Amino acid sequence: MPETKPPPMQLALDQARDAAGRGEVPVGAVIVDVDGKVIARAGNRTEADADPTAHAEMLAIRAAAAALGSPRLTNCDLYVTLEPCAMCAAAIAHARLRRLYFGAYDPKSGGVEHGAKVFEHATSHHKPEVIGGVQETDAATLLQDFFKDRR
Amino acid sequence: MPETKPPPMQLALDQARDAAGRGEVPVGAVIVDVDGKVIARAGNRTEADADPTAHAEMLAIRAAAAALGSPRLTNCDLYVTLEPCAMCAAAIAHARLRRLYFGAYDPKSGGVEHGAKVFEHATSHHKPEVIGGVQETDAATLLQDFFKDRR
Repeated sequence: MPETKPPPMQLALDQARDAAGRGEVPVGAVIVDVDGKVIARAGNRTEADADPTAHAEMLAIRAAAAALGSPRLTNCDLYVTLEPCAMCAAAIAHARLRRLYFGAYDPKSGGVEHGAKVFEHATSHHKPEVIGGVQETDAATLLQDFFKDRR
Repeated sequence: MPETKPPPMQLALDQARDAAGRGEVPVGAVIVDVDGKVIARAGNRTEADADPTAHAEMLAIRAAAAALGSPRLTNCDLYVTLEPCAMCAAAIAHARLRRLYFGAYDPKSGGVEHGAKVFEHATSHHKPEVIGGVQETDAATLLQDFFKDRR
């Protein structure tokens, strides 16, 4: 029987769960190359690293670019459990990622379908294909449980 | 006679010049704390580091947060030679920087006064005071000379 690999969003959810375990807002991200091979995975580390830019997407983009030795991730796809904020959306455009798959929508802080809607302006020099709502319930439940426990 | 320190934008312009010398788009940034002490300075390193997120502002924010051991740069100010893009603007909001001073306006790629106008949405949970056009001519001339040489 062929080996069954977990789908990238499942791996991103694993990263989100690990982030929650570290006391971080549970968001996880994975980047796959044109062959579907995972080249980077990361969870949110803003508190652990004392770094306001250390969102899961940013860490995954930086790791993937380091792995490929290029600031351009052409033909690579990013999976993230939550709609990216404006910072991460613009970084996705800078990295020239082909597709963005995200889990839960984020009306409060999102920058793709909400707020700044980064890809909808001519100042964004690249617009990835965007697929939202992928395993949305799993991602949203993780976030809800995290914030419920903190209240 | 009291020692005269160069103003932060002058230091940011020095960083931009150093970036040009490395073949990078010449943008430089400096962060000062509440006492006016420089706690971080950086130039654009996207090509040198093969990192699409390595804009001068991002590197300065990460360095300042590391120096203070906190993801929040409350009461610190950022000086950058060019209007920040959407990525850097959102990072400035995440970092809770008090003031943003920038040099040249950037209608093509800016995310503060142009395009996504990141701070003008409720999804931006912090809005710094913004002062644009500081030593604008110096910053713009650096950029124009850089792109002229590449044509």
